[in-house]
Amino acid sequence: MAGYVSDAVIRRLPGYYRHLKELEREGVMQISSQGLGDRMHLTASQIRQDINCFGGFGRQGYGYSVPELREHIARILGVDQPHQMIIIGSGNIGRAVACSDSFPANGFETTAIFDRDPDKIGMQVDAMIVQDIANVKRFINEHPADIAVLAIPAEEAQAMADTLYALGIKGFWNFAPCDLKLEADAAVVNVHLDEGLQVLSFRMLHQQA
Amino acid sequence: MAGYVSDAVIRRLPGYYRHLKELEREGVMQISSQGLGDRMHLTASQIRQDINCFGGFGRQGYGYSVPELREHIARILGVDQPHQMIIIGSGNIGRAVACSDSFPANGFETTAIFDRDPDKIGMQVDAMIVQDIANVKRFINEHPADIAVLAIPAEEAQAMADTLYALGIKGFWNFAPCDLKLEADAAVVNVHLDEGLQVLSFRMLHQQA
Repeated sequence: MAGYVSDAVIRRLPGYYRHLKELEREGVMQISSQGLGDRMHLTASQIRQDINCFGGFGRQGYGYSVPELREHIARILGVDQPHQMIIIGSGNIGRAVACSDSFPANGFETTAIFDRDPDKIGMQVDAMIVQDIANVKRFINEHPADIAVLAIPAEEAQAMADTLYALGIKGFWNFAPCDLKLEADAAVVNVHLDEGLQVLSFRMLHQQA
Repeated sequence: MAGYVSDAVIRRLPGYYRHLKELEREGVMQISSQGLGDRMHLTASQIRQDINCFGGFGRQGYGYSVPELREHIARILGVDQPHQMIIIGSGNIGRAVACSDSFPANGFETTAIFDRDPDKIGMQVDAMIVQDIANVKRFINEHPADIAVLAIPAEEAQAMADTLYALGIKGFWNFAPCDLKLEADAAVVNVHLDEGLQVLSFRMLHQQA
């Protein structure tokens, strides 16, 4: 990829990936920047800029090969390789992530779910049994994982992230309503659901979609 | 508020709100832009710019009153008023939203959950019974709601949004992996969980947090 990519472009990448997969399913093998832009509510020039930015290709007057561009974006996103996730916290969010079909379908497989609450340890969630968080080190040693889903209270999230980082986990999908401080070689994506609702409330009030 | 506010600033507003609430709980009544910036991993000048942008106040060398700024931001976000939500879809995500304590604690109260699957209608979710989506019109007439949580498959989301818009719902919290086309006076926030995971994968691969 061509050097630094802005956060806005990175956030659009999964949208490209989704639309290209849909196009492929619909049997569309070739698409122009105009056609892709119409579909994604972006201008043709934005599309060309974005795709240039992540080192894309395409020929003037010919457009993009849908499967090639889809594969290219999959490689950039790193979703051409499988990921193993462990879920920390077996509350509503942890269980919802564990039970989803769409994450494994996209290459993100959940291998275990942990809790520290004795009432929850041993409970069945999807095809898994909730394990004692005290055993997380042994589990990771035996079953390497690269992503931890933090579905625990804010007060516990930083210490848990530190523990898991020391065990080799480098990716954190953080549902706790707090900001994590992580080492430079760790990555985090926050899903602050409360904050999304507040943004919705703002947009409703100010009609600024 | 002072005219158009950029999307980046809007997305930071809930973070301000969260930190100001935490400060208030900690008993901090006054804070400088430097102090708030340190806490939020922003520079003092970014803080001042943001707060100016949403018509904030504060005096040179004195800083901001934490409760006043918190109330001001609550009004901008529209979270000083309660919101009523209905949930469409009683799968994992719909149930997780229904069972969360934090949405009602922040003024977003779920009043009903609907499904079209006869196996799910009548099921208990938190303190609610899953209702038949066929009855949504009657329910909304009797219990006005302003937000719909779309926790249904992508293929059904647009038609459902259109139906609910016609019934007066103007806010859509969309968990379906698709982009909704809405009228100008409707607002949407998408929670594309799959896409968040792909962004995490990207960051892990490129070490660009």
